[in-house]
Order: sequence, then C-alpha cells, then structure tokens
Amino acid sequence: MSLETLMSLLVVGSVAFDSVETPHARRERVLGGSAVFFSYAASYFTSVHLVGAVGEDWPAEHTRLLRSRRIDTSGLNVIPGGKTFFWRGKYLPNMNDRQTMEVQLNVLEQFNPVLPEAYRRCRFVFLANGSPANQIRVLEQLPGATLTVADTMDLWIRETHTEVLDMLQRIDGMVLNDAEAKLLTEDENLVRAGHKVLKMGPKFVVIKKGEHGAMFFSEHETYVMPAYPTERLVDPTGAGDSFAGGMMGYLAEQGNFDPRTLKTALAYGTIVASFTVEDFSLDRLRQIERGDIEKRMTDYRKMLSF
Amino acid sequence: MSLETLMSLLVVGSVAFDSVETPHARRERVLGGSAVFFSYAASYFTSVHLVGAVGEDWPAEHTRLLRSRRIDTSGLNVIPGGKTFFWRGKYLPNMNDRQTMEVQLNVLEQFNPVLPEAYRRCRFVFLANGSPANQIRVLEQLPGATLTVADTMDLWIRETHTEVLDMLQRIDGMVLNDAEAKLLTEDENLVRAGHKVLKMGPKFVVIKKGEHGAMFFSEHETYVMPAYPTERLVDPTGAGDSFAGGMMGYLAEQGNFDPRTLKTALAYGTIVASFTVEDFSLDRLRQIERGDIEKRMTDYRKMLSF
Repeated sequence: MSLETLMSLLVVGSVAFDSVETPHARRERVLGGSAVFFSYAASYFTSVHLVGAVGEDWPAEHTRLLRSRRIDTSGLNVIPGGKTFFWRGKYLPNMNDRQTMEVQLNVLEQFNPVLPEAYRRCRFVFLANGSPANQIRVLEQLPGATLTVADTMDLWIRETHTEVLDMLQRIDGMVLNDAEAKLLTEDENLVRAGHKVLKMGPKFVVIKKGEHGAMFFSEHETYVMPAYPTERLVDPTGAGDSFAGGMMGYLAEQGNFDPRTLKTALAYGTIVASFTVEDFSLDRLRQIERGDIEKRMTDYRKMLSF
Repeated sequence: MSLETLMSLLVVGSVAFDSVETPHARRERVLGGSAVFFSYAASYFTSVHLVGAVGEDWPAEHTRLLRSRRIDTSGLNVIPGGKTFFWRGKYLPNMNDRQTMEVQLNVLEQFNPVLPEAYRRCRFVFLANGSPANQIRVLEQLPGATLTVADTMDLWIRETHTEVLDMLQRIDGMVLNDAEAKLLTEDENLVRAGHKVLKMGPKFVVIKKGEHGAMFFSEHETYVMPAYPTERLVDPTGAGDSFAGGMMGYLAEQGNFDPRTLKTALAYGTIVASFTVEDFSLDRLRQIERGDIEKRMTDYRKMLSF
C-alpha cells in the first residue's frame, strides 16, 4: 500500500447547487454541498477521495475544478435521469442565522454510498451531513480506518435520534454546530453539552460556533478557538464544511491525531473557513494557495499569544 | 504625590440592589451595580476609588465588604431620604440574553458625580454605565488622567446619541457589548463595527461578546479573545463590569497601557469574569484570591497556544 493512500482522506457527503441570498447580494445555482466545500478545503493539505451523487444536470466543469485540486472524483456517482441536490437559503442581517427556503433532495433521496475498492484503504474518513444509517453503512465498509469523524444535522437528531446515538458509538470524532449540540444533549450550556456528547461515544467532540469560533472536548482537554476576524463576510455557506476540511486535511497530512496535532488542525480549519466566507461558493478559496493559509495562520498565532 | 495614588484606579458607576432570576434559581436584592462588580474585580490588582450614590436603605455591611478589599468608598454618597438603585432581571434559557423586568432609578435619577479632591489625582479612570453627560462631567474633573475608559448602554445610544459621540471624542478607550456596538454603528459585522467605533474617537475599542469572549481594536491591531469555558454558569450579571475591572485593575497595577500590557489586561478581565458568572452577586469572587486568578490564567494561556 502506498504512503499516498495511507495518508489520504475520504469524504462522503452532499454535492449540490446552492442558491444563496444575503442582505447584500445573491447567487443562483452555484457549486456547493458539504463534500465539495470539505474536499476543496482539505485539498490544500492532502489528496482527497470524494463519494457523492449528482444528476445529469451536473456540469463537467465542476468535476474538472475538483480534479484540478487532487480531488479523486471516481466515487462521484452520476445518476442516470437524476437531478442534483438543490438548496436555497437566505441569510438574516446578522449573517449568522439563515433560513432554508427550498430543498430538492433529488438524487440524494435514494443515495446508497458504495465505496470504490481503492477508497476502502483510506485511513482518514469524514462523514459529512447525511442520514446516520448511511454514515453507518460507510463505516462498515472501512473496518481499517485510523480516524473516523462525522457531522450531523438537526433533522437527523430530531427524526432518527436512535440511529444518531448508534453512529456516535462507532466514530472517533464528532463535529457539530452549537444548535445541534444543544438539541442533541438538551443542554443550553455548550461546555456541558460538549462533555455530554463525549459521553455518547466519540473520543473527541468539536462544537462549531460560526463567527464565534469552535470548542474542543476530549477526556483530558477542553478549549476554545475564536474565529479569525474578517470584515469581508460575504457568504457563510460552507464555512462549517471548510472548517472540517481544513482540520481533517491537516490531520491526514500529518498522519496522526495526537492532542497537539489536533489543536493545530482546528486552527487550520478556522483559517480555511475564514477564507471561504469572504465570497460565494468556492470563489475565494479558488484565489488562494497554501502560502495564503500559512500567512493568515501566522497572524492568528500572534493574535492568540500574549 | 505617592506612587500608590499615581497608579490607583477610579471608577464612577452604579451601586445597586439586584433581583435576579435564572432558569435554575433566583436571588432577591443582592449586592450589585457596575461600580461594585468593577471595583471588586479590580481590587485583586490595585486599590480602587469608587464614586457612586446609594440611599438610606444601604446596609453598612456592603460598605465594609468593599473596604475590606482596598476599595476607597469615601466617594460613595449616601443620599438623605433616598433609596438605592434597584434592578430586576430574568435570564432566558440560553443564559446569554436577559430581560429587564423592573428598574427603579431612585438616587441615580439626580446623581451628579462630584469627585472628592483626593480622587482627582487618579491616573486610571473607568466610567461605567451612566449618562454621557455625567461621564463628561467626570472627565472634566480629571484633566491629568493617563487613561480614561468608558462603557455605555443601549438606552444612551438611542436617547442621547449626540452626547455619546461627544463623550467618545474625549476618552482613550471604549468598552461596550456586541449589541451596543451594532446599534451605535448600524453595522451587523462586529469587525467593521469595532473599526467604526474607533473612528469616532477612542484609541482603542473592546467589544464584549458575553460567553463568546471579547474583540479588541486599535489602529494597528485587531484580535479576539475567547471566554474561559466554564460549566458552572450560574448568573452572568456583572460579567461585563468584572471584565472591565480585571482589565483596568491590571493596567493600573502595571502603570501603562502599551499594546502588550493591554492584551494581557484583556486576558485578566476574561479570567475574572469567568469566576463572577459561577455564582450570584459577588459570591464567587469572595471565595477567590489572586492566586486562583493566576492559576486559571495559566490554563487559559495553555488553551490558546498550539
């Protein structure tokens, strides 16, 4: 087995068209989806294998864009006669809260993720939003994974609570946002909520707080990382998935997830997400290189030292 | 002039009875008020001179408590026939948002802060919540101050906007919370809002974000400090004033406010506030000593380094 495969990263999640409205601008049917933001963000650090489904309306240029970033799209299923997942959302003036105006599941309705044989040797695995049943199905195809991390959504916590609890016992790390953590634990205090999720099974838990950063919980550590402050907040869509992508990309690059590496990984996730929100879709990430991430990382380290 | 006076700290603000209800408990007419929380928090670092007004209902034991902490209460006016300011508030389940249920201004209605002669040599000055007209009156009595910092409230921003702008041109530093910063600048992005407040006059601006920490803005620096994560959130009342007290207390102790000292001062403010919220009124602060603050500060530094 090559080192490349050993250290590479697998993501299973949505590939989408997003229509986004903010108080200042709007975009129609731009490239989006959790697996897309995740894999692009991770691609600054490692090669990524993507699993997802799209319809026949999926433009070849989007696939070319992903491939240009070392993202393996051989696991991207084009469903004959199908239409790609579509999401329409609108951000409130605070740019942190949003309303989902329209969802067309389309090809995701029947999506059953089967991993290509080559993908099954990946050691670092991220299960982006998806039903816990599907997340478990993916885990079962990856008995040799080194690190498995999952995200979830309020919908799954509400409607498939038992399956979410089952999934939590099978993964190493959980990444979820503040509202989801409160819903899952029925606790309004995020520090207590983090510890409660930890008790549900995973070795570590990351709670994303949008513009307020992220909190980390493990048996021996609790810490908070603030978001990198940016004035140029254009569209928060994909920030959470980019955060996870930067984090997992760095872990896969380093080949381990010891406490020190994990903390640095959270910082990289924070920095990549701070770029994502500076424009719609992948537009800002397409302008930057690893050097831009490192430059901002240096500022961020300086910001946090006193 | 003694070094003690040169480095000591003056605060003008409210002294109050607070009735507080949280989802878990309630307390009636406990010791509160911006100047009380501020001066107690600052007393771990320096001596404090307090200016405020109370009524004849003020118990001598509260004054004794403050004096036991090197807080000079000779500027605390007991108004004959008057009643002490009273505030009743209720916290929502998230423990971050609160509703004011009742306010009795009482002696504060006519309060005109006149500083005792000895107070006029203080070099570090904090103007806690109060009308901007009163804040300006205090500043005019302190022409030789080294560092003047003020807080404000939504009420003053709405009803005495011109005076708030006047006050902002006369101070060195402004401390306000996120909602106030948005209201004052009509900008929902806190990074832009911070820079806009800076343009209104002060040399630096601190935006308090409650459980999410604080942001700092000066001509050359923008940074964020997360709150210290505590599970034991009992009552957030006084957190913002304790933050300011810890910050200003440390600055007065150091005798300067260069960028490096300011940053450490924000961290001390963060740590003192993290204790305040762990019980009602001053109950938690009364249990701790400087050593407890230093211990948590060491944890906090470790938390932010990677």
